[in-house]
Amino acid sequence: MTRPDLSPTDRSTIKRGKNRAMTDRSALHDVLDAGLVCHLGVVVDGSPLVLPTGYGRDGDTLYLHGSTGARSLRAAADGVDVCVNVTVLDGVVYARSVFHHSMNYRSAVVHGRATLVTDDDEKLHGLRVLTEHLAPGSWGHARLPNRKELAATAVLALDLTEAAVKVRTGGPVDDEEDIGTVPAWAGVLPVRQVFGEPEPCHLQPEGTPVPGHVRRRAG
Amino acid sequence: MTRPDLSPTDRSTIKRGKNRAMTDRSALHDVLDAGLVCHLGVVVDGSPLVLPTGYGRDGDTLYLHGSTGARSLRAAADGVDVCVNVTVLDGVVYARSVFHHSMNYRSAVVHGRATLVTDDDEKLHGLRVLTEHLAPGSWGHARLPNRKELAATAVLALDLTEAAVKVRTGGPVDDEEDIGTVPAWAGVLPVRQVFGEPEPCHLQPEGTPVPGHVRRRAG
Repeated sequence: MTRPDLSPTDRSTIKRGKNRAMTDRSALHDVLDAGLVCHLGVVVDGSPLVLPTGYGRDGDTLYLHGSTGARSLRAAADGVDVCVNVTVLDGVVYARSVFHHSMNYRSAVVHGRATLVTDDDEKLHGLRVLTEHLAPGSWGHARLPNRKELAATAVLALDLTEAAVKVRTGGPVDDEEDIGTVPAWAGVLPVRQVFGEPEPCHLQPEGTPVPGHVRRRAG
Repeated sequence: MTRPDLSPTDRSTIKRGKNRAMTDRSALHDVLDAGLVCHLGVVVDGSPLVLPTGYGRDGDTLYLHGSTGARSLRAAADGVDVCVNVTVLDGVVYARSVFHHSMNYRSAVVHGRATLVTDDDEKLHGLRVLTEHLAPGSWGHARLPNRKELAATAVLALDLTEAAVKVRTGGPVDDEEDIGTVPAWAGVLPVRQVFGEPEPCHLQPEGTPVPGHVRRRAG
């Protein structure tokens, strides 16, 4: 399925730092696939509410989920506008001037109206996508949701039609007159998220092997 | 200065997972000090907009900044409600059931009306706080902002009165009947953000030593 490139609307068009805007859909997919937590924004009683939540992507659908009682999910399921942001931090940029200090990052913003997934098959599919994003391999390994658990979980689907991606890479962009004259160190301190050594639950027999899908992730 | 504990209003009172809510102000400070990027939510034309931005904390004031032209900053400076979220991800929680998969995290939500800092001395102070949060040691090392740069930067101050903190730690919380019967591995895969090897700007003489404030951070 071919989808159009990004930024068809005013609010999803990047106004500042246009040179950092990416317009191909694969850039959006890459950022969403690289993050682990998204920030979901909704308007509640006229005020913004921003909360972190898990997500997963299948094609051009973003799935979100949470307890059926969660305030942000309830608001988002009401057919109102939502905004989802996924940001991956890649580095701290040290410039010769304080003013040009910056960050390297990849950031995706998605606008739209989320729909509450009510069909059980699609709900299971959404949960599978969400689970495999958070913990790849767990869907075929852990116990799958039963009827009661399925009922207690709200799954939202958000179409990726209206989205924008902004990426900053590379070293500091200093003022010409500061280069060679200001003695401050300039460069990038890379930042990345890493997985540590798996910590087994104490309720399982000691020496239970860590399965491949967890072990591989720990690196 | 003694400030009251958290959660004085309805919207900043945690409704779900009350057992994960922290009510002491030091927990709020800890989360804000541990994060590097915040997510700023504002309402623009009735829709939520969530964008990542840098921040810094001084006491019970959160400073945000950005270009004077940035849409989210402009909206936030308009005396409207904003919501700032800082989330630090600490681990992926593998449970025996897909349903109980979770994340370990520390998350702070701040509600309020940001004020545009107009006094030059306070603006400089805010920028110092912001810079020292992003790049500790840079304020005394890099060239400080000049008059033109100061004018091109918007600094917002947000009071930390109305805030909530939610923290999840520890292993999976599985259903009793799954323990010992479901063969899935259960435990936590720790997640943390690390700094890599500094990458010097190619415009400075080769062999320029990496200063202590950068070197120490890389570990």
